Formats: sequence, structure tokens, C-alpha cells
Amino acid sequence: MSKGITSKKDDYSQWYNDIVIKADLAEHSSVKGCMVIKPYGYSIWEKIQAVLDQKFKDTGHSNAYFPLFIPKSYFSKEAAHVEGFATECAVVTHYRLKNDGNGNIVVDETAKLEEELIVRPTSETIIWNTYRGWIESYRDLPLLINQWANVVRWEMRTRLFLRTTEFLWQEGHTAHATSQEAIEETERMLDVYADFSENWMAVPVVKGKKTPTERFAGALETYCIEALMQDGKALQAGTSHFLGQNFAKAFDVKFTSKEGKLEHVWATSWGVSTRLMGALIMAHSDDAGLVLPPKLAPIQVVIVPIYKGEEDLAKISTFVDELILKLKGLGVSVKYDSRDSQRPGFKFAEYELKGVPIRLAIGGRDMENKTVELARRDTKEKFTVAQEGLDTYIANLLEEIQESIYNKAHQFREEHITEANSYQEFKELLDGKTGFISAHWDGTAETEKQIKEETKATIRCIPLNNKQEDGVCILTGKPSTQRVLFARAY
Amino acid sequence: MSKGITSKKDDYSQWYNDIVIKADLAEHSSVKGCMVIKPYGYSIWEKIQAVLDQKFKDTGHSNAYFPLFIPKSYFSKEAAHVEGFATECAVVTHYRLKNDGNGNIVVDETAKLEEELIVRPTSETIIWNTYRGWIESYRDLPLLINQWANVVRWEMRTRLFLRTTEFLWQEGHTAHATSQEAIEETERMLDVYADFSENWMAVPVVKGKKTPTERFAGALETYCIEALMQDGKALQAGTSHFLGQNFAKAFDVKFTSKEGKLEHVWATSWGVSTRLMGALIMAHSDDAGLVLPPKLAPIQVVIVPIYKGEEDLAKISTFVDELILKLKGLGVSVKYDSRDSQRPGFKFAEYELKGVPIRLAIGGRDMENKTVELARRDTKEKFTVAQEGLDTYIANLLEEIQESIYNKAHQFREEHITEANSYQEFKELLDGKTGFISAHWDGTAETEKQIKEETKATIRCIPLNNKQEDGVCILTGKPSTQRVLFARAY
Ligand SMILES: [Zn+2]
Ligand SMILES: [Zn+2]
Repeated sequence: MSKGITSKKDDYSQWYNDIVIKADLAEHSSVKGCMVIKPYGYSIWEKIQAVLDQKFKDTGHSNAYFPLFIPKSYFSKEAAHVEGFATECAVVTHYRLKNDGNGNIVVDETAKLEEELIVRPTSETIIWNTYRGWIESYRDLPLLINQWANVVRWEMRTRLFLRTTEFLWQEGHTAHATSQEAIEETERMLDVYADFSENWMAVPVVKGKKTPTERFAGALETYCIEALMQDGKALQAGTSHFLGQNFAKAFDVKFTSKEGKLEHVWATSWGVSTRLMGALIMAHSDDAGLVLPPKLAPIQVVIVPIYKGEEDLAKISTFVDELILKLKGLGVSVKYDSRDSQRPGFKFAEYELKGVPIRLAIGGRDMENKTVELARRDTKEKFTVAQEGLDTYIANLLEEIQESIYNKAHQFREEHITEANSYQEFKELLDGKTGFISAHWDGTAETEKQIKEETKATIRCIPLNNKQEDGVCILTGKPSTQRVLFARAY
Repeated sequence: MSKGITSKKDDYSQWYNDIVIKADLAEHSSVKGCMVIKPYGYSIWEKIQAVLDQKFKDTGHSNAYFPLFIPKSYFSKEAAHVEGFATECAVVTHYRLKNDGNGNIVVDETAKLEEELIVRPTSETIIWNTYRGWIESYRDLPLLINQWANVVRWEMRTRLFLRTTEFLWQEGHTAHATSQEAIEETERMLDVYADFSENWMAVPVVKGKKTPTERFAGALETYCIEALMQDGKALQAGTSHFLGQNFAKAFDVKFTSKEGKLEHVWATSWGVSTRLMGALIMAHSDDAGLVLPPKLAPIQVVIVPIYKGEEDLAKISTFVDELILKLKGLGVSVKYDSRDSQRPGFKFAEYELKGVPIRLAIGGRDMENKTVELARRDTKEKFTVAQEGLDTYIANLLEEIQESIYNKAHQFREEHITEANSYQEFKELLDGKTGFISAHWDGTAETEKQIKEETKATIRCIPLNNKQEDGVCILTGKPSTQRVLFARAY
């Protein structure tokens, strides 16, 4: 392969960046930390959005839209939240520019805001300030709302999709009458994320809870799904937070219960972002470029004619046109690339780079033999397949590829969850085999911090339904009742 | 009707506001000039988005995403653009907040940006700065891209949906090899907007060109669609701009032509926004609330059971469940409201307020007679309809309602395009009958300005395919070759 993609083994980080750029997914913009999502990358994001949006609606949620700007004072209202979010953010201080008379555009100092506005890093505060007007009685609950939006968190070191100053996401914000209902919602949405990650993105995940240190600012409990990338580092793919009554208290949101009592509302919030694109790319791709699971591939099948002259092409195109109709009838998205400005080999490389799951090539001899040449992107296998029944063959193969990509990632993940029973063993695993390390921890923030400082590994989560077993903390030797998952992470 | 909606005749502006609020479409947020789009309002916007997005894709466009922030200096690069946009806008000057030690969150003055960032009021500058890297050869053209995004234009006087500081929109930005192709694109997208407005929103529009004074800042030609609201004021529902080579020159975007010459690229941009929601509401609604054309109604049919006791309800529900399946099969969206916490009369009023096109009520006697009571929202007519064949009856009726709403708006518009042949007549029409006034104009910006200052009427457009006729300007008496459309406008 000579597409200018760095080999994964040589430099994983550069390999990732090369794929994002060369597969036309995204690029850095001229605004520090902000990316441009290019049409091909955005079309994958649109598929992600469509599937998730349907899942949110199927679980009873509606979309709404809240302001981009949040008054600075709102961040001070919830004590923990302010520590987490009112730091690195974009601050709007003025609302007018003017010409200074010398042809320069300058900020009009007379147009200074009385209170600065923060570009939302997350919307709990503005939304809970709004919910105060929407919730009066238990009849108004549960309130199940989601927002698709852009958010801004000022980042000094950015990576395309994985960490950018502006990113796109969805944030669900729900209000409930009881603690139990809110916890159920938190868990339900974690399941939605896990289902999406595994069955659409083909990325296996561990569902778990964050330690208090790693919780969302203002949450009583943060649930997460953690995925493993091919370099053995973990990536948090989605979070779902049980917020208790913290935001309801901070923004004075009460409801009259069935029993006629005035009570504070219980809250959840949950979100996934364009970071999922990073996970999708890193989980499956190879040195030839992107590998996409069929369910999220904007183009599932590309057809390239191999022809000499117009007459040859016309024959092939007649067959292809009919095939496309049949495939579309089966819900398969197809692109027919009959450009004569590029040679077949160029096209093959391009679609390989872009991760199109199935490539068909059809030449004169194939037409005579009533066959096509089929290439699988994930395994790079090639087959000669009969034209008869090709549409259902392809539909079935797409399902098989989806499964196969998941299984490969799952096997890798399973092979990269290792138990460590001493700190020495722990450190060797981190620098050697990598992956998730399952180890005993004494449950204190101090230990967690020291391990992080010494090894750069964090506790990714305490897996749900974790096995209870007696053990001793790898660092302190203090007693522990369960193992937790450590890893270095994105 | 006593839903707290001000009568349209008493106070049109308050009537509009009442409908937006009471029908749960949107509300003012605590951030000055920014609105919250509530779930019901947002579900209409989602339908608008879905239809337009498909139309954009059907005409060859792809979506992408560009940064929210634009460096201040970019606005100075295109001379006309800076005058139009670098004034009332949100300016980001800092990127960090800090605790001042007394528990107050303040702006960290050490985190001041070297160059201020502007929250995009429109994205021509950042996009054309990006296109420089994407376009090299005629093979890269046309580049047909659309973005769904939020934009901010600081507004002192705001109205929900019609004029807000932050609003949602789509902005198309295309690049072409020739002037002619760019003009064709500009006109094609104007046609898409007109088609959408008339055939989905049921709002008839006049297609035309803006006068030089009213053009988009940086455009050589601005096309628009103009709609007429029930108070006789015009509303610009969409614009499509031919930008010539202005942005290509400002951002140095060149391509190698087929002939091997290096040339500047030709540009268009076009957009519609949540303002369409305002047009949709104002064009059709009445004193009982919102009236929605079926094609954009989130709920097309609501079914309310009238029952005494569980047994009665069970019988009705059995019938309704089957009906819903059939309706869904025909692509009709249905809501069955069997809440027992509210009486039928309350529900009737609520769905009337929310503009649900068809309401069915079904009681015990209806079940015996094998009928239902059907109410049309637009005409407020009620019919007794046979249960036999009800699904296709409803599907057909929805089409009839769509047409009927359009015809009513079209008739109103036709009755409110009036020719004026003197300034006196012109002024009388503005204050009396209102609507579009077709009048001769001498073609100068001075006359346009004086008429605007004296009457608040602006030239909405020079209609496409305008009839050429000799006349004299209503203000100056100078010769004119065609009439243009004036109106007071939103
Ligand atoms: Zn976890
Ligand atoms: Zn016009």
C-alpha cells in the first residue's frame, strides 16, 4: 500500500491521523482546536445520528433546542459543576465590532456585556433553569428531552474527533419524580449506548460505573461504556449520569407529588459525541485505510466497471443498473463509479481507503461468464461470484461482515483484559501487552491518584454486575472486595 | 374559545406570540434574544429539516460541518461582507474563567485571545478559507455542500422564530467553474425553496431578485422568495445568492480549468432558517390556535375516545388499535389520547390549539353505528364518517386539507397584490388594504430609500419573468420599464 498512510505499528497516532485526513473524514480548521468535518466524515456522523435519534424516540424522548450561550453566573449555582466546567471555556464579552476609521475591524468597547456569556460546554445549567418553568406537578414528569448541538470546551492539545475545542454531540436531560425512576433512566440510556456501540459500530464495550474521582461534575453516579482501541488504550464512548437532586436544588425545580407534597425533581443527563467517530475509526481500520461496519457505511457497495470502449461499458452498465435497483430494494446503498477519468486501480485504492465494505469489479469476461469479482474490505478476500442471485448474496454478506468485524474486535478485547495481582505485574502489562487490566483497588481516591501519576493508567470503570471476590489492593495491600478495570486511555 | 389567545384582529403581534407560547412551540430563554425551541415546535422543525435535506441531496449536495468561530480578521477580507456582518455579533475574547478566591467566578484576564473570535453570523468566510485547500482543478468542481448549524446575529429587538439572536438554519455553499453554472445553481436552489414553501408549508411565494440595496453583503445578485402573512406584511422566506468571484478572490481560491488556465472559482450561497417556523405559524393560524398543513404536522390525526368505564374504553381501543395500524401503513402519523386524567373537551381544545389537522372522536354510539366523528382543524367542519374504509378516507382528506390550506393562502395573496399608480394611492394601500403593492420605481437607491423612510415599505423583490411595461416612478415620476413589489415586511 502506498497511499501515504503511516503503518499502525510504526506510529499508531500518526496512522490514525493519516486515515482521518486521507479518507476525507475531517481536517483541522484555521481556528485553533476546531475541526472541519468533511462530507464523507459527516455522512458517517449522519448515520450515527439517525440510528441514535430513532433509539431515543423509541425510548420516549423528544428533541428540543436550548441556547448556545449560558450566563456566567449559572455555573456558580451547582457547586461541583462549577469546578468541572467553568474553567476552560469560550467567553463572550462583547456584542459588536466596529471600523476604527483606519480600515481595521476592532471590538466596540461600548458594547460590553454586563454579564459575560459562556459558550455551552454542556447544558445542564441552562436547561434546568428552563425546566423550572415547565415542571409543576407529577403529571409533567417524566420529562424526557434530548438535544443535538455543538459544544465548546477549550482544549490546548487537540486530536481530530477525539478531542476538539468545538464538537458535535447529543445531550439528554431528563426529569423524574423519584430517585429510582431516574436511576432506571440512567441505566436504560447506558444500554442504548452499549447496544448502539456493539450492534452498529461493531465496537464491544464494558458497561460500568466511574469512580467518584472520574464522575461528571455534579453527578451522584456516572455510568459509562468503555471500548478498547487497537493500541490497547481505552476510549470512553458514552456516559450516562444520575444527577440526583443537585440541579433541581441549584435551580429550584420542584413538583407537587401525587400525595400533594412539594419535592425536588430527580435528574439524569447522558451524551455521546463526534468522539464516537474516533472510536469507529480506531477500532477497525488497518494500514490500507478505514474499515467501516456495513451498518454505518455511507456506501456499502461500490461497483467498478472494467471496460474497453463505450460498447463494453454499455453492456456492463445495463447489468449494473438492474443490480442497483435490486440492491436498493434490499436497503443496500450502492455507488456505481463509471468515471473514465480514473483507472480501476486508482478507484480500488480509493474505496479501500474509504472503507467501503464490498467492492465489485465487472469486466467483459465476467459478463460472458455471468460472474463478478467481489472484494471484502475487512478481510481483503476476493471471490468470483455468480451474477444470478447476487443481490441477496450481497445483502447476506453485509450482515456477515458486520458480525465478523464485531467478532474480531471482541476477540481482541477479550485477549486484552488481563488480571494483575501485583503492582509490578500491573506496570509490566501497561507497558507490554496493554489493554484493560483487572486489578484490586482499595477504593480510595488517594490510591487512584497515585497510580495515575505513576503509570498514567486510570480506573476506566467498576464493571456492572462485577464479581465480588476478596483481594488486596495492588498498590497499598489494603483489603478489596472486587477488581476494577484500569487502562491508559484516550 | 377561551385559551387565552388574543384575537388576530385585536392585536396581530400578540396573537402570534400567544400561539407560539400556548401551542408549546417556543419561549424566550433567560439569555437575552435567545429562544428555547420546545419539543412540539422542534418536531415541526425536524420535519422541515428532513424534507429540505432530502431535496438538497436529490440535487447533489452533501452535508459537512465548519467551525462555530471565525477569526475576526476574516470579516475584513471581503469588502462588502464586512459592512453587512462584522457589526452586531457575539465576540469571544477569553478562553478561561477562574475563581477569584472570594467564591466568585470571573474571567481570567491572563487567558485573553490574541485575535478575537466571532460566533458565526454566516459562514462564507470560514468556508471559503477552507475551500482553498479543497479545490485545485476543474475535476473538484462543482463542490456542492450544505451545513445545518446555529448562527448568531446580535439583535436588539427580537421575536420568537422571526428574529432571534441565535437561530438555526442551513447554509449551502457551492463552488463552480463558470459564472453560468453558479447562476443556474442559485436559481435551482431558489426553486427548491419555492417548491418546499408552496408544496409542504402551503405558503405561496413570489420568486424574485432583490434590489442592489437589499442584496446579501458580498453578493452580485440575491434571489428570494417572498410570502404574505395574514396581516398583509411580507416575509422573506428564503434567499439564494450568486456571489460571483468575490469570495474566491478574497480567499484566493483558484482552479485549473480544462484548458489549463488558473481561474477564480464562482460561488453561491443559500439559506433558510427557523424563521420558516414563523411564516408557517403566521400564514395559516386562526384565533383558536395553530393550523398546520398535514405534510408538516408531527401528529396528523388524533383520536379521542369518549367512554364510560373500562369496558367501553376497551371496545373502542380494539377498534382504534386496528385503525392506527392501517393508518401507519398509509404513512399517516396518529396519536391515540386515552388519558383518563383529562376530559374530552380539554383534549379537543388542546389539539385544536396545536393545529392537529384531523381529530377523531369515538364513543359508544359511534361503535354501535360503525361511525366516527371527524373534525377538520382548518375549516372546523365536523362530519360523521363510516368506520368502513376510514383509513383511505383519512389519507385522502389529509391531501385535500393540504391543498385547501394552500388555496386559502394563495387566494389571500392574490387578493393582496395591488397595483398602485401614484404615491398617494401607494400610501393609502399600505395603511388600508395592505399586502404587496406592485408599482413603478425609477431604479435608484435614493428613491428606494426615501420611500422606505416615508412609508416603512421596502422593495421586496423584482419578480422573476416580470412583465415589461412603460410607466413612471410613483415617487419621482421618472420613466420606468417594470413594476416591482413593495410591502411592509417582517
Ligand atoms: Zn467504564
Ligand atoms: Zn422577493
